[in-house]
Amino acid sequence: MSREDLRLEEAAAILERTPAAVGALLEGLPETFVRATEGEGTWSPYDVVGHLVSGERTDWIERARHILSGDPRPFTPFNRTAMFTESEGKTLAELLATFAELRGRNLAELQAMNPGTGDLLRTGRHPDFGEVTLGQLLAAWVVHDLDHVAQIARTMAKVYADAVGPWAAYLSILRDRRR
Amino acid sequence: MSREDLRLEEAAAILERTPAAVGALLEGLPETFVRATEGEGTWSPYDVVGHLVSGERTDWIERARHILSGDPRPFTPFNRTAMFTESEGKTLAELLATFAELRGRNLAELQAMNPGTGDLLRTGRHPDFGEVTLGQLLAAWVVHDLDHVAQIARTMAKVYADAVGPWAAYLSILRDRRR
Repeated sequence: MSREDLRLEEAAAILERTPAAVGALLEGLPETFVRATEGEGTWSPYDVVGHLVSGERTDWIERARHILSGDPRPFTPFNRTAMFTESEGKTLAELLATFAELRGRNLAELQAMNPGTGDLLRTGRHPDFGEVTLGQLLAAWVVHDLDHVAQIARTMAKVYADAVGPWAAYLSILRDRRR
Repeated sequence: MSREDLRLEEAAAILERTPAAVGALLEGLPETFVRATEGEGTWSPYDVVGHLVSGERTDWIERARHILSGDPRPFTPFNRTAMFTESEGKTLAELLATFAELRGRNLAELQAMNPGTGDLLRTGRHPDFGEVTLGQLLAAWVVHDLDHVAQIARTMAKVYADAVGPWAAYLSILRDRRR
């Protein structure tokens, strides 16, 4: 699928489902899973939800606005570990509620922007890799969500890496991103 | 975590959430994502839901029963591609509803079995790798769910593999299980 094929309503259909999907996976789950990581320097599901909240606050919609404003300066770099301080003292349920609220607001703003095919080709400047289009930004927002959904599932699965015994041979997720 | 550490209520907490998580990800989503695959010989999210339904019908709880019955014969091999015929003519919404219903029933049966620590160490015979415990079976059931949740997210993400442009460098899910 080429970049021109991104359809706003399809991208939005995924973006609007992520808070419920992440909530359904995690809400009320024992800490054994919520706070598990894949090893040193990796994130727990709790950390991931905080990171998704950060992205809603300072990353995706902010950059969409930036592109449509025609501002030639690079985007403000996104702090991908901001949640280690921002989530402090917050429960998972609070983070999930905040994520759902901010995502809803940001999608409403995206719908209000109502970018047409031409707008999806408008460009902004990424601080690391230069020129990017609005369509690429929106596709990246979607894929970023899904990457973190998969990360949550993978991190939870690895809690049982030993518990599955010989079934490990059939459960490839236990080997994904093994360090 | 060693196999003895599997706690039934923790495993059940994940198993009971999977239908809602998969439903939240997929229900009502455009066919572009629901029917996407990762390439020849790989499964779409629609196929995966059908496979999860098959597992509820003929795999996991059936094998738990088998172990607790003390039957020394190997488990009946599980047909992991049965859904290609079983799902025929069914909508995704129907498959999701069936998955939720069967999972609920199977979890109720698991709770009724109420296996204690000793029961989790009882063994059965897997047709491929021989002796396995009930605890390993239950852990594998959980990890199998999560493997398929991650697969659904990864398959959907890859629809936008090109659409993300240079962001691909930061979105590792686009390279996971690349063939």
